[in-house]
Amino acid sequence: MPTVPPLAEVEILSQGDEVLEGEVADTNAAEIARAVVDLGLPVGRHACVGDDPAAIAALLFEAAERATEVICTGGLGPTADDHTAAAVAEAFGLALCEHPRALEQVRARYARRGRDLDETGRRQARIPAGARVLENAAGTAPGFVLDRPPARLWCLPGVPSEMRAMLARHVLPALRARYPDLAPARLVRFRCLGLPESRAQLLLGDVARPGVRVGYRAVLPEVQVKLRFAPDLAPGAVERILAETGARLGASVFAVEDGEQVGAIEEVVGRLLLARGQTVAAAESCTAGRLCAALTRLPGSSGYFLEGAVVYANEAKERTCGVPRALIEAHGAVSEAVARALAEGVRARAGSTWGLATTGIAGPGGGTPEKPVGTVHVAVAGPVGTRHLALRLVGDREEVMARAVAAVLGLLREVILAPRPG
Amino acid sequence: MPTVPPLAEVEILSQGDEVLEGEVADTNAAEIARAVVDLGLPVGRHACVGDDPAAIAALLFEAAERATEVICTGGLGPTADDHTAAAVAEAFGLALCEHPRALEQVRARYARRGRDLDETGRRQARIPAGARVLENAAGTAPGFVLDRPPARLWCLPGVPSEMRAMLARHVLPALRARYPDLAPARLVRFRCLGLPESRAQLLLGDVARPGVRVGYRAVLPEVQVKLRFAPDLAPGAVERILAETGARLGASVFAVEDGEQVGAIEEVVGRLLLARGQTVAAAESCTAGRLCAALTRLPGSSGYFLEGAVVYANEAKERTCGVPRALIEAHGAVSEAVARALAEGVRARAGSTWGLATTGIAGPGGGTPEKPVGTVHVAVAGPVGTRHLALRLVGDREEVMARAVAAVLGLLREVILAPRPG
Repeated sequence: MPTVPPLAEVEILSQGDEVLEGEVADTNAAEIARAVVDLGLPVGRHACVGDDPAAIAALLFEAAERATEVICTGGLGPTADDHTAAAVAEAFGLALCEHPRALEQVRARYARRGRDLDETGRRQARIPAGARVLENAAGTAPGFVLDRPPARLWCLPGVPSEMRAMLARHVLPALRARYPDLAPARLVRFRCLGLPESRAQLLLGDVARPGVRVGYRAVLPEVQVKLRFAPDLAPGAVERILAETGARLGASVFAVEDGEQVGAIEEVVGRLLLARGQTVAAAESCTAGRLCAALTRLPGSSGYFLEGAVVYANEAKERTCGVPRALIEAHGAVSEAVARALAEGVRARAGSTWGLATTGIAGPGGGTPEKPVGTVHVAVAGPVGTRHLALRLVGDREEVMARAVAAVLGLLREVILAPRPG
Repeated sequence: MPTVPPLAEVEILSQGDEVLEGEVADTNAAEIARAVVDLGLPVGRHACVGDDPAAIAALLFEAAERATEVICTGGLGPTADDHTAAAVAEAFGLALCEHPRALEQVRARYARRGRDLDETGRRQARIPAGARVLENAAGTAPGFVLDRPPARLWCLPGVPSEMRAMLARHVLPALRARYPDLAPARLVRFRCLGLPESRAQLLLGDVARPGVRVGYRAVLPEVQVKLRFAPDLAPGAVERILAETGARLGASVFAVEDGEQVGAIEEVVGRLLLARGQTVAAAESCTAGRLCAALTRLPGSSGYFLEGAVVYANEAKERTCGVPRALIEAHGAVSEAVARALAEGVRARAGSTWGLATTGIAGPGGGTPEKPVGTVHVAVAGPVGTRHLALRLVGDREEVMARAVAAVLGLLREVILAPRPG
């Protein structure tokens, strides 16, 4: 095991023309940085170069001179613009060899897809001599890690789901093992719905102080408030600040993450339903499938999700959810009355514990002075009645839809936890 | 005016803890890169450091050694963690001076907001000696540009709207003036479905040649093949290569982007339906709302999308789409027969031109040796019969679902363009 240098520092490298030329923002780098900082390790730099072997080699060499951990994504695939393995070999004067374990993994992956391994695919098994293969359970290209004491060089694929799985499985455990004395700051995250970021800042403006860092992050449809506490802060002080923060944010908080991740509102709701043996059905107008998609995100969702009706046309609202035409004519499709009727109708149709509904104007067209774009009604029908929320949501079409989905799921969470007549 | 070096290259630097620690992805870098590439200038590298004056100075100095244009964002504000001007002065051994024109701009900005200029705000007027002030019409912090021949160093604010306005007003015109002979490469993008990246590479392995750069990019559920042609390539040669590429990629191509963007498969299909005055309804089992969500992504989708049924439970398949229980019992819910019955059932129910259906096993549970995770059947019912595809899809739960949605939309595009009996 290499000597642990006094100052451990991480550099994050990305390679690929699509990132360099701005086709995509470098979300991999951000995700890796968050994970590393959460461990308590400092990040020194990010850098990105294109699909150019010489540029990659130069960057790798420099980073290994500065940092003790270099985490690189991209360029491991089978195609002619994938150069990372060759660039690592070039940077450190190593041979590039077909690695038996890597070959076995690539071959097995191809076999599972019912394909023969051709010469192109086989390129993915070539890694620098001395590197250790990192299995990629989610894709074909294996990663690898190379020791260049005091630096260690991790090469992961650029496909975000593959990168994420390999970071969690290979990299983070190895970082914890190499730096056992890390004292990560305690991190508590308040996950909020229906609260703008600027309002959260206003509510919590005076919470930051020495030893307490407050961060705000809008992750549609949520705003997350992150409190990072220095390890030497007194536990009593931490608890007081947490209680104060929770009180100020109030009912907009749907989950508090303290160490473990609880997931998005649909996961919180899904687990509540499973634990109570309850079921749900959904009638969607303006969200047009996105509510059902959210309700089925959690594996095992067939344990609580029965059926959905995407009732875009008014005829569909009548036919499938039994909403009387007269009701639609009297109040308009975007109304409290229709939202309630949809929720009750789909609940009756499916025979579920809960019936959810959304109806609104997602835009960009369709707004009127009385019902502008962003006007949304959501409802939850249940055993003791129907609850309703009238919303005025901001954002573009998909943002309005995402906020409407989160709002009805947040309402469902409330009524599951405290059912009361609507 | 400094001498124009033979190879002009741009580096893009970002500074700020929120980017370095991954709280936000570096969208400024991506936006600047796209603008620069669109001018025809090559980008060499992006890099990011935190709010640390020594790290910023080191990075600036290095970048000015490599590139002819260095575009830096962030760290120009009034607060204690804004260090860019001081770091530039430090990197190049310059004095940091209060600049009269900068001071005037900051003061005017404060006045417009009805605030007096305090010492903190006044810091924003201190720029390195010899730099030229760049007015910031959207915020308080002026930017500046410094000549370090052959490099030129642009410092812009990190607030995206301010960065964007100053890039357009100050930077891009100066780049055009300094490099008047720029001719952007012609870029043509083939957007493909159901084609693995390695297979695309195999098909097009010999297309790359001097003057033709071929790039591959997997953007779930698509694979995109990008051809970039040097400006001096003969038009006839370009057309031959494009024709050859299209022929080799074959039916997997759902769109060719040449200058203008056509959007994802759901947008292509949505425009086809609108142009023909046709309508669609969808019955979803394994995709559980995601197909309806895709069909309604385009504003104006109510012009062709009528209704969707998310028939997760078998009872829902029977009740809503009239799939006989005996058919489900004989073939299983995940079968060609049920996919066809769902597509025909939802078409009859909605009275639409087309009926779409998906049924499959998205995983991670529910697979069997005969029907492993990723087994999906999709069908399109229409005026002259029903077409069906049996798929074996790879990826995690959401990826299988996304690929199933794309597959049924791809099939719909085919039958719209060439309807024939199933």
